Parts: sequence; structure tokens; C-alpha cells
Amino acid sequence: MTNPDIQKVELEKAYRLLNHGPTVLVSAQDDDDIDVMAAAWACALEFSPAKVTVVLDKSTKTRKIIEKNGYFALQVPCLAQLDMTYQLGSISQFDELNKLELCGTQLFYPDDSGVPLVEGCIAWLICKVIPEPHNQQAHDLFIGSVMGAWADSRVFRDGHWYFSDAHRSLKSLHYIAGGTFYTIGDEVKANL
Amino acid sequence: MTNPDIQKVELEKAYRLLNHGPTVLVSAQDDDDIDVMAAAWACALEFSPAKVTVVLDKSTKTRKIIEKNGYFALQVPCLAQLDMTYQLGSISQFDELNKLELCGTQLFYPDDSGVPLVEGCIAWLICKVIPEPHNQQAHDLFIGSVMGAWADSRVFRDGHWYFSDAHRSLKSLHYIAGGTFYTIGDEVKANL
Repeated sequence: MTNPDIQKVELEKAYRLLNHGPTVLVSAQDDDDIDVMAAAWACALEFSPAKVTVVLDKSTKTRKIIEKNGYFALQVPCLAQLDMTYQLGSISQFDELNKLELCGTQLFYPDDSGVPLVEGCIAWLICKVIPEPHNQQAHDLFIGSVMGAWADSRVFRDGHWYFSDAHRSLKSLHYIAGGTFYTIGDEVKANL
Repeated sequence: MTNPDIQKVELEKAYRLLNHGPTVLVSAQDDDDIDVMAAAWACALEFSPAKVTVVLDKSTKTRKIIEKNGYFALQVPCLAQLDMTYQLGSISQFDELNKLELCGTQLFYPDDSGVPLVEGCIAWLICKVIPEPHNQQAHDLFIGSVMGAWADSRVFRDGHWYFSDAHRSLKSLHYIAGGTFYTIGDEVKANL
């Protein structure tokens, strides 16, 4: 990893990267075919072995690549990537061949899995599809087994988010509709 | 509805109640058997007809009731309910028969479905289980069809959240681990 802020996250704690419900970017590659889309419907499914769900509409190029290749990444974009996140969720590569260039999306490869990750995000999970044809066809629901996880140590380290200490531009995004998002807010602690 | 702040949400916009990834409370009733638990792994699945997913561990009483009765509600707790939310996720009714009393959980019934909702939340979705035995057994994953939705109009009206205008105590909660939550933060608008 060339960026020293990016640190490995142990797989047993990977669910914490998604537990607060951020909007994610979904990336995938099959040979020269690469796409990235935004998705609000991604969720942890299992602690250990770490698994996730993500809903991928049949109209998306990203889904087509994942169906061929069997791997995808979920990554957590931050406020600095607000416009890019919305654009990646609004523009289809079927309409705009140079979608990723238009959106200013830069990629990197953290391991030899060949799954591209989006630079500037605050957390990344590389996942292998657990084939579930019924879920994929009937519900557009994909289940992935988490193979590797990383986070930007400026906001996530030792298994915990530190949004309150970090710069506002590193806050996660939570999509509503029509280009409106919320950032994550303040940390609060509950008592039993 | 006795509380005039609670307004119906059209089913086509019900996904927006969950789209920003809040932690939810899951409630269910079968005759005199009533339970409520917290869940961070709930997600929208389909816009129309509105559907949701929620992960329910086999050890929970709430799941047992849902498996018998076929209905559940997802509701969005707010900062005013921080301790109650954590308690509902930590205490099992199998250990503490009077769990709901201990947690200070008050219920109401918005329609004749017999599904109890938790007072003081900011949004509610009553759901009917779409039976998927494989998902339920292998992944603890339940799919529900949304039959009715309501929100507290002080923070959600005309299909939009207004967290920035409302009192801080009405902000949604986003769970990480170990009693640590984040509140939802500020509204931001993206440009294409």
C-alpha cells in the first residue's frame, strides 16, 4: 500500500465499517471491464466469517461484471467525495463509456485479487460472491464473503471509527434521495 | 392515531425511512407474546412494492415470535431513546421475562394488524414476512413486504427527513459496537 494512512482491518471487525449504515461505492473488474456504482442498500450479514449483502439492479454494468467475475468491493466514500458519489450512482457506463473519467474516479489495487478500489474512500472491503441464484434473480440481492478489509487510519483504527476527531471531509455519507445525503454526526455512548 | 405528530408515509417512499442506514428496533407479537430487539443490520430491498431485509439471530425471542406469527415492525429510534435502544439489543427476554418493562418500552397499535410499535420512535414500518426458508436458516436473513409506514412529522414529512431543523433528541442512531453509536449529522446536497 503506497498510502501509509490505509491500514488492514481484521476480518472479524470488518462489519464495523458498514454497521452505521453508510452509502457505499461498489466496484468490480473483469479484464479491461471496470465499473463503479453507488449503492445505499448494503449491509453486514455475518460477523465471522464476515459476510455482507448488497442490492444490485439488473440495469447496472457493475452487476454484469460481478456476475462474470465473481468478486466486488464495497467501499465507504466520504464528504470530500460527495459529488463523485452521486455521479457514480446517477450515470450509467452503458450511456457514458468514460463514466469513471467523467466522475474523476481513481482506482488502486491493494492486493493481487484484481479487484479495483476507489482512492479517497475511508474504508474498503473486497468480497467474493457466494452464489445464490434465487436471491440474485428474484431480489437483486448479492451476498459476499469478505476476503480483505482496509480503512483510513485517520478515521478508523483499532476497530473503531473516530469521526469526531477527524476532519469533517472524512465523514461518511448517508443517502436519502434526489442528491440529498446526510453526513454521519456525533459519537454518543449508551448505558445498560 | 392519538399522537398528531405521527403521519402515514406512502409505501413508495417508505425506503427513505431506512435509506440512511439507521439502527432499528424490531418488534413482534403473537397473542400475549411480545418482544422488541435492536438490530443494526436492516436495509431496504425494493422501492415498489416496498420490501426490506433484516438479520435476526436464532437466539432471539423476537425471531421466534416472527417465525410463528409472520409479521414484524421495523422502527427508527432516536437519540432520546439511546439507552433503551442499547438495552433492547443487550437483554434477552429468555433471561429477563420483564425485559420490556425493564427497558421502559411503551407500545402502541397504529392499525388492526396486531403488530406493536414502540412509542417515541421517529419512523415505523409494519412488514409481512415473505417466507424464504433458505435465507432464514442459512443466513438469518428475513425479507419483509412493507404493509404500512408512519413517521414523526416533526422530522419526516412529504417524503423527506428534516433532521437539521428538528431537535437533536430526534436524530436517528447508527450503531458501531460496545454501546457506541453515532447520531445522524448534517444534510448535504450533491451536484451532478
